Amino acid sequence: MKSGLLVVVSGPAGVGKGTVVRKMMELSDNVVLSISATSRSPRPSEMEGENYFFKTKEQFEEMIKNDQLIEWVDYCGNYYGTPREFVCSEIEKGHIVILEIEVEGALHVRKLFPECVLCFIVPPDGNELENRLRGRGTENEETIQKRLLRAREEFQFLDQYDYMILNDNIESAANRFIHIIESEKMRIIRNKDLIQEFKNI
Amino acid sequence: MKSGLLVVVSGPAGVGKGTVVRKMMELSDNVVLSISATSRSPRPSEMEGENYFFKTKEQFEEMIKNDQLIEWVDYCGNYYGTPREFVCSEIEKGHIVILEIEVEGALHVRKLFPECVLCFIVPPDGNELENRLRGRGTENEETIQKRLLRAREEFQFLDQYDYMILNDNIESAANRFIHIIESEKMRIIRNKDLIQEFKNI
Repeated sequence: MKSGLLVVVSGPAGVGKGTVVRKMMELSDNVVLSISATSRSPRPSEMEGENYFFKTKEQFEEMIKNDQLIEWVDYCGNYYGTPREFVCSEIEKGHIVILEIEVEGALHVRKLFPECVLCFIVPPDGNELENRLRGRGTENEETIQKRLLRAREEFQFLDQYDYMILNDNIESAANRFIHIIESEKMRIIRNKDLIQEFKNI
Repeated sequence: MKSGLLVVVSGPAGVGKGTVVRKMMELSDNVVLSISATSRSPRPSEMEGENYFFKTKEQFEEMIKNDQLIEWVDYCGNYYGTPREFVCSEIEKGHIVILEIEVEGALHVRKLFPECVLCFIVPPDGNELENRLRGRGTENEETIQKRLLRAREEFQFLDQYDYMILNDNIESAANRFIHIIESEKMRIIRNKDLIQEFKNI
């Protein structure tokens, strides 16, 4: 990793990850979002290169084989993964790259890029998460129960993250996220060249 | 350390530590400044309990003997140190305690309070530091050279700090400081109780 910063964001379904990330990006410069590749079919509202890079199963397996993904999963029979090239070239340019991925993928990315920052978005409390899942009105009881169970599983990984961002309110959560990015840029370990200059004064 | 946060600030003479800290405190809640004890005589403008706690040499040595200081130095025949009680009681209350101390003291505090945050304020570059020292117009050439030599010594400790705060402008530096404090509050290691709650949802 050169001058940029790789920031991984996870959090349970219904916690508002996407909304917080988008709001944070509106308020920031120099931040880019990594777009995942997937082998699932596009939904009517989804755009190639905006929501996902849509691939056939064969194309995706070719990407795996050629080590073109920094992490990938097979979820319910569909592949999802993070293309390596975009992430690496944006970091080289000094940009801040946001990866919105699940806990298992996040921990894998941490191994490949030990200097990345892992953020976990949490709801004000567990009831709130349940309310938000129900509030969507789009899922049946079984799906809601499955998502809550998955949220419980994901919370078990919290200790392996660096930061916890409370999403009680989109604007506050986005500002918390900005505090993390701005402070991480100031970390001594990310400024070795500048420090050497001061040492040689 | 319970719920508060101990933040150590260092930086060479002339870098504007005091001004940045004061500006940051104007813009923040819940932040308190630790007042040092010293055995040197008060200058005409200095107030007991505001600039320093003024002690006799004997009183100061009594404090050392009774382990009432978390760090102290003998500098040019005068003692300077950080009273333990204020720091510990403010941290217990959940406050953010700022210690403005030199590099050797800072590294000693890190040993006693491994979870503290070490910040180093740096000038835009070395020339700027020299200009600022000269700009004060109060020191002779010998003193300026001594301070620059000391700055060089202090910069050698930069690697042992957590964050580097660039002071190109007071307001910007104060805001950078706030980013660090706000993000440190969100660190997973400082939120163990809350994380346990999420794990038990």
